[in-house]
Amino acid sequence: MALELLHEATEARKRLYTVRRERRTVGLVPTMGALHAGHRKLIEEARSECDWVVVSIFVNPLQFGPQEDFDRYPGKLSVDLRVCEELGVDAVFAPGVDEMYPFSHRTSVEVKELTDHLCGRFRPGHFKGVTTVVLKLLHIWTPDRAYFGEKDAQQTAVIKQMVQDLNLPVLIQEVATVREPDGLAVSSRNEFLDPEHRKAAGSLFQALQEAARQVKEGIREAGLVRQAGLDILEREPLIQVEYFELVDPERMRPANDLRSAVRACSAVHVGNVRLIDNLLIQPA
Amino acid sequence: MALELLHEATEARKRLYTVRRERRTVGLVPTMGALHAGHRKLIEEARSECDWVVVSIFVNPLQFGPQEDFDRYPGKLSVDLRVCEELGVDAVFAPGVDEMYPFSHRTSVEVKELTDHLCGRFRPGHFKGVTTVVLKLLHIWTPDRAYFGEKDAQQTAVIKQMVQDLNLPVLIQEVATVREPDGLAVSSRNEFLDPEHRKAAGSLFQALQEAARQVKEGIREAGLVRQAGLDILEREPLIQVEYFELVDPERMRPANDLRSAVRACSAVHVGNVRLIDNLLIQPA
Repeated sequence: MALELLHEATEARKRLYTVRRERRTVGLVPTMGALHAGHRKLIEEARSECDWVVVSIFVNPLQFGPQEDFDRYPGKLSVDLRVCEELGVDAVFAPGVDEMYPFSHRTSVEVKELTDHLCGRFRPGHFKGVTTVVLKLLHIWTPDRAYFGEKDAQQTAVIKQMVQDLNLPVLIQEVATVREPDGLAVSSRNEFLDPEHRKAAGSLFQALQEAARQVKEGIREAGLVRQAGLDILEREPLIQVEYFELVDPERMRPANDLRSAVRACSAVHVGNVRLIDNLLIQPA
Repeated sequence: MALELLHEATEARKRLYTVRRERRTVGLVPTMGALHAGHRKLIEEARSECDWVVVSIFVNPLQFGPQEDFDRYPGKLSVDLRVCEELGVDAVFAPGVDEMYPFSHRTSVEVKELTDHLCGRFRPGHFKGVTTVVLKLLHIWTPDRAYFGEKDAQQTAVIKQMVQDLNLPVLIQEVATVREPDGLAVSSRNEFLDPEHRKAAGSLFQALQEAARQVKEGIREAGLVRQAGLDILEREPLIQVEYFELVDPERMRPANDLRSAVRACSAVHVGNVRLIDNLLIQPA
């Protein structure tokens, strides 16, 4: 079957009608386009678990702050479509901004607490934009499963909380981060790094690994582990640290006790590019 | 078929599976119990339009303010069940507060603008509580149609806006207000009025009717029409006016121009009972 390209929510409803009549399960991979190896893995996972796979491509203005990189974000739709075709995706949903947020749009969804720290603290309104667009996509496609990357761990935690709180009948699947050879998490934003900054960016993963190493070695004081990570980042002059935290993996709040699993999460600016990454750490 | 009583969202999912397999349409009537003639009409409407009807009974703490009448609201479940049985309802969903809002609940849904005026101004947080619980019920029951009373016109407008903005696949049906012989809109709260206050309460409908009469007579100045309604209410010493407004029926904002349809909306306190009512007015 050829890849279908849809732009409107009403088309989705019609298309789903036949998919559901054939009792096929639906997998949704929400993206902002500029598809890379991380997205490929999400799509492959969806392809292996669901009968019918739709990839949404929508650069969601609601989740970008006024000073952020909304304008340089979009990739080329034709390139993204080729990736989807190659991976056996059934449909791509690429709505315009007016389709998702007509002039009359006035509704938003918010998850408290999990959005207070980490990116939530530095990107006010970001997660409200994420949950609102994801809820819309979940309503439009009513998937059995939806796929999100572990790189955006706070986002995935927030979406899981929303799904649970609102009784949404969907399974949220978190897919492991894909990394470059030096450990840098694959991201659309990596493309904006020049060679020098690209090299410096490797410190982000090194800092997370150092935190993991220390926890596994038995250090139980969060402050020490955090400082060890920060030391690595601060040694790199091209990096400005936004945050480096050890958090409870479900509530996404600073963890003081390192006897159960924690997630080391960090956001840094490398030149004018903002990168995030994280590692789940199981104490030895 | 006997009436089924369900208390948990997971039971809903199981029950729906067979209903959907039989390709029956589902109608949801969300209530806070204490069922009266207004609810009966909602249920009858659902019964006539849908194959399978579920009535939810849940006094939603999120939509009551700290000084409001949450505690005296609940009716007797056994009485409500009898009403549902008599009207041929298929299932009653009566979840506990812990089922709807476990300790971990952190998500809310909000509709802007439509909630700024009228009850939204006097009951901060009320509509956020309404949209959150209604969205949960819509996810739990995935009805084809859901039924709301015209008496709560602002609530219905807010829910319609949410459904549209979030691409929810459900039809919101607004059912006309049921009135007592003197015009008082039927409400669970009428039971709390003693005979003297009950008599005074009749002024609310009279004030709305007077506004309608003036618009139909050709008066096009909102301020004059509003004052005529207020005059009637203020003549009644047992009534304290919260608001009396003419609004755009969709956006629920004060209307200055009475050349298209407007809704006269009012909230009053009669003794310690708060009553609301409204009338849609089509200019002659």
